[in-house]
Amino acid sequence: MRKIDIGKELQHLIGKEKVKSSLDWRVIYSYDGTPTGYRGIPDVVVFPETTEDVSKVLAFANEERIPVYPRGAGSGLTGGAAPASEGGIVISTEKMNRILEIDEDNLGVLTEPGVVTYDLQKEVEKRGLFYPPDPSSYKYSTIGGNIAENAGGPRCVKYGVTKDYVMQLEVVFADGTVANVGSKAVKSVAGYNLKDLIVGSEGTLAFITKAYLKLIPAPEAVRTAMAIFPKVEQAAQAVADMFKAKVIPTACEFLDKNSIIAVENYAKLGLPTYAEGLLIIEVDGYEAIVDELINRVAEVCKKAGAEEIKIATDLQEREAIWTARRALSPAIVQLKPKKINEDVVVPRSKIPDLIKNVYKIADKYNLMVVNFGHAGDGNIHVNFMYEPKEEDRVEKAVREVFLLTLDLEGSVSGEHGIGWMKKEFLPLEAKDALEKMKAIKRALDPNNILNPGKIF
Amino acid sequence: MRKIDIGKELQHLIGKEKVKSSLDWRVIYSYDGTPTGYRGIPDVVVFPETTEDVSKVLAFANEERIPVYPRGAGSGLTGGAAPASEGGIVISTEKMNRILEIDEDNLGVLTEPGVVTYDLQKEVEKRGLFYPPDPSSYKYSTIGGNIAENAGGPRCVKYGVTKDYVMQLEVVFADGTVANVGSKAVKSVAGYNLKDLIVGSEGTLAFITKAYLKLIPAPEAVRTAMAIFPKVEQAAQAVADMFKAKVIPTACEFLDKNSIIAVENYAKLGLPTYAEGLLIIEVDGYEAIVDELINRVAEVCKKAGAEEIKIATDLQEREAIWTARRALSPAIVQLKPKKINEDVVVPRSKIPDLIKNVYKIADKYNLMVVNFGHAGDGNIHVNFMYEPKEEDRVEKAVREVFLLTLDLEGSVSGEHGIGWMKKEFLPLEAKDALEKMKAIKRALDPNNILNPGKIF
Repeated sequence: MRKIDIGKELQHLIGKEKVKSSLDWRVIYSYDGTPTGYRGIPDVVVFPETTEDVSKVLAFANEERIPVYPRGAGSGLTGGAAPASEGGIVISTEKMNRILEIDEDNLGVLTEPGVVTYDLQKEVEKRGLFYPPDPSSYKYSTIGGNIAENAGGPRCVKYGVTKDYVMQLEVVFADGTVANVGSKAVKSVAGYNLKDLIVGSEGTLAFITKAYLKLIPAPEAVRTAMAIFPKVEQAAQAVADMFKAKVIPTACEFLDKNSIIAVENYAKLGLPTYAEGLLIIEVDGYEAIVDELINRVAEVCKKAGAEEIKIATDLQEREAIWTARRALSPAIVQLKPKKINEDVVVPRSKIPDLIKNVYKIADKYNLMVVNFGHAGDGNIHVNFMYEPKEEDRVEKAVREVFLLTLDLEGSVSGEHGIGWMKKEFLPLEAKDALEKMKAIKRALDPNNILNPGKIF
Repeated sequence: MRKIDIGKELQHLIGKEKVKSSLDWRVIYSYDGTPTGYRGIPDVVVFPETTEDVSKVLAFANEERIPVYPRGAGSGLTGGAAPASEGGIVISTEKMNRILEIDEDNLGVLTEPGVVTYDLQKEVEKRGLFYPPDPSSYKYSTIGGNIAENAGGPRCVKYGVTKDYVMQLEVVFADGTVANVGSKAVKSVAGYNLKDLIVGSEGTLAFITKAYLKLIPAPEAVRTAMAIFPKVEQAAQAVADMFKAKVIPTACEFLDKNSIIAVENYAKLGLPTYAEGLLIIEVDGYEAIVDELINRVAEVCKKAGAEEIKIATDLQEREAIWTARRALSPAIVQLKPKKINEDVVVPRSKIPDLIKNVYKIADKYNLMVVNFGHAGDGNIHVNFMYEPKEEDRVEKAVREVFLLTLDLEGSVSGEHGIGWMKKEFLPLEAKDALEKMKAIKRALDPNNILNPGKIF
């Protein structure tokens, strides 16, 4: 009977039309993009339209000790947006989806959390402005979800991650308290930096109801190149040398040997399948400089041992280069029925160590592995492709990949977050800081109602 | 007798030569750069050499409930590094002053906290690398102090603040726990972002024992210009228009009317004393583009109404332009015997509102005010110059300046921190977030031993 009461109470609090309690709604909102599926069906799904709505729902949930699961587009890959167990309230930001103000003088945009990242980007681009964060989900994921996960993307090697563009947040804490954190001013050192603590906290510390995001002037021009390397070390050397040549690429995407083979088999682009590394490098900036920059990149790649280098001279050639990267996802899912994608990250210079040892791990467990990702960041997506019956071996291999990553002074997640998927590995990375993280969770959410079962 | 016991206990814990208990040492370390002077003399000053030393001192202090005051160079302006009351332990980082590793492949430097920022910059510059944060104290303040205060500086309009260059910290929490927070990898979203919570927490949440800092390739070239505006609105318009012309200046320093008059009276540079605004703009980047950029800046300034624009064509001319800025401090201290410098910050477009209303406040209280600062950030240093007998009026005026700043959606501190100097104003800015900040303090430092009496 508890279920019906929650729905009725919530209808009374924020209005009937914003509360959905029927089974179909509840089942739909029990999933997110996480490959391992659902863990529990919520009691109710609510669609608040205002900060006040959110505050009322949280205050009620806190009082009644009901778990609350904040949700953007539900595109996350680690279980961040789905209930961790049976019951509770899913709070969707779908109806908080307005861009409230674009401030061209101060280069800022005030938005509600449910706005799709791509829509916001298109809107500010109309004014010659630029919101750089570009997680691969950006055409359907939302600003609120991006902030909760501190989303990255290919461009963040030059432009930084979502955190670097969040200036101020309006949030609701677990007890229903509404507060602004951060500042609309470019700099602020008044009190603790709650803003950057909440960004990336995966909906476990506060619910984001508004975000004031930093914009930058849109770059004038872009140039793109592709380079193919016989050895993975050569590709890594080229990445390090680019920075030494004072070029910070906008994107620096890496495909390993198995990625190249998969793409070639799928799309027949004429890629050499003997190559251990392929880099797609993009530079942007002023019209007067981008040609020089891409030439520096080509020079560096050649010196590092690239056997083939292509520089796109028009949009069509640029698209052709990116096809190799875009064909990856459809190409690799044809290899095996199941896939697990772990977004580990290491200091850039350790990419060859990572790749070589990942292959050893795959050999040891007789598994197929495909590695690609954001080489400029050292952020490699390690994809094990497997049959359902191989699941046990995959689990062991994944564990070894995480241990390897930590051994290389890396992090178990560069972009996707911990959610429920990587909970067992966080203590290996956070070590003695873990207890301090838990203390902060208890301080801000004493009844543990905000996205319980995630991170810890 | 408690005093002697503390010293002896500490000598026993970390070694006699690292502990100073005599009055002269204790008096010297009761001060920092804060103009209002000291509030209490510590029981003892310690000079740890290792993380283990720091951990032992903190664990002991936590057990015995003794206040601990972390200290870098003691150059802070808000009381962050000095005891807030009688007694306690000052922990100096003076003997933790080694640069441990410069990693040219990954663009990072591992350093102890007591290294002077300028020394670190010179060391990495030898390798063609660049550590941008440049607080005006950078020739004597330390990396640890800069991190604790999240220091800014003129260059942060383009390059960001200290926080943006801190990748990983080794810290000791109040209970003596040693932990790494953040990551040596460029991206990491594993668990809570304790790193950015600790940066800028003014030594109240943890003691920093090591820092891994991000470096970037040094810019190839720099260009500098000066523009003089009859009206302050014109200067502000020029700042906004620079960004629209896709130029993010490395520095964009502003001098108001009274600053110009003070500098002219002091240094006789031929500045027009009728002018309400002077901008010094610096751009940097690739050799092939900097001339175009500084020309864009000049164009923008002209269009906004600048009456005089100078572009430096060599180092000597560049130095001549900066002389106007550098002469400010010696010039204004000649105006009156006392000075209070408040580093308020507002959204860029609100600089004219800020300046005009600050003049009104100065008029109301019959005070002399001089405003200058980092216009690109909206960070203006409001300096009231006064006689000791005017102190009461200054206090009232400062209060009104803070209220004005908050009214303009700004922050009471862009760079200097809260310390004990601005404690009464933090609640006005943080509002309902204040209780959450306090909850975090209690969670991480339950006995309130780390820099008590600061921020809250």
